[in-house]
Amino acid sequence: MYEIYETKERITADNDKEAEKSRAYLKEKNVFLINLMGSPGCGKTTTLVRTINALKDQYRIGVMEADVDSDVDAETIHQLGVKVIQLHSGGLCHMDADMTARGYMRMGIDDLDVVILENIGNLVCPAEFDVGAAKKVMILSVPEGDDKPLKYPLMFEVSDCLLINKIDTKAIFDFNEDLCAERVHKLNPDMEIFALSSKTGEGFDAWIEWLKQEIEEWRKA
Amino acid sequence: MYEIYETKERITADNDKEAEKSRAYLKEKNVFLINLMGSPGCGKTTTLVRTINALKDQYRIGVMEADVDSDVDAETIHQLGVKVIQLHSGGLCHMDADMTARGYMRMGIDDLDVVILENIGNLVCPAEFDVGAAKKVMILSVPEGDDKPLKYPLMFEVSDCLLINKIDTKAIFDFNEDLCAERVHKLNPDMEIFALSSKTGEGFDAWIEWLKQEIEEWRKA
Repeated sequence: MYEIYETKERITADNDKEAEKSRAYLKEKNVFLINLMGSPGCGKTTTLVRTINALKDQYRIGVMEADVDSDVDAETIHQLGVKVIQLHSGGLCHMDADMTARGYMRMGIDDLDVVILENIGNLVCPAEFDVGAAKKVMILSVPEGDDKPLKYPLMFEVSDCLLINKIDTKAIFDFNEDLCAERVHKLNPDMEIFALSSKTGEGFDAWIEWLKQEIEEWRKA
Repeated sequence: MYEIYETKERITADNDKEAEKSRAYLKEKNVFLINLMGSPGCGKTTTLVRTINALKDQYRIGVMEADVDSDVDAETIHQLGVKVIQLHSGGLCHMDADMTARGYMRMGIDDLDVVILENIGNLVCPAEFDVGAAKKVMILSVPEGDDKPLKYPLMFEVSDCLLINKIDTKAIFDFNEDLCAERVHKLNPDMEIFALSSKTGEGFDAWIEWLKQEIEEWRKA
């Protein structure tokens, strides 16, 4: 009914090697890389801002803002006083390991503890490209619906942590948290799930606590 | 800072030829193909259901549900009593002209007037692939935010019509319709914009009226 381009498989295989190389390099440098993914409008930047504010006294943070175009998010992050670089993907719908490594090398990581990549808003393609991160964090927002694990399973399979964002709007959208969690855990039994609102701050502490713990464990390993 | 894979450009060029061939074939067959695009959770299926119900007395409709995986949407559409086929993209994040043509040939179009392709939920990749449609319709939902034309410009550039969906939730999200329209028209002065709610039906008549007029004009051309 359709064909699959072989070119893509080839790109993915090369990418996995690059990702492993990058992950080893970052471990050596003691820099914890987070790959933050989610649909357009799920609240990646708002979540990032609140997360940075919660971490920045403890860790030196750098941010890579990946966008198809524009630099609206980089400007927002820049105002928080953390190191930031804007990456333009040149039309591509995801970041791969090589682009990511070029990004952090250009930004410079010698003075950083944590680097966060805000990936391109997309629930499909970024799931297929390991960028060499220590942790993959995805956001699903309440207005998107609790059926998304059924429709975009790969992203839920590959992520380490799911933030269910915009939980303050739950009353007006038909979103069943338990059903969503059930669907997610069927795909990925180890997924950590935090329901929160990056706008109001509701539920945010648990996510930050988990993240700090993950960073500390990784540093000791 | 990053490189662009040449493979992609090659794929796109081939696709444009396929799309033109497919468009000519559909014109000959008098079948109006709509390419419906938007992010995960923007309300593509809900909009489709209401649109089908508004059109099905006048036109014989077929639907192609494209998904990375799953067939939850095909099941929903099937219950409306219209012809439907589920297309699985095999992990790919968009439909191209060839996959689309294979899809409608498999479904069969001799008994149809209008075919709607519900593209994969993605605001990036589907914008780059002409599938041979007569009209490209995109959905942006209010919770996604009015800044999306700045961040995903190509989709807004290539579409013929923008449906601003979930307008019933405008009160709780910071969504400026005028600002959004201004940003859209800067990218695409000819874009038709309809603010509506596929859930409540608010604003739906204007969209349906426009669509019917487009179908009739196309048939006469």
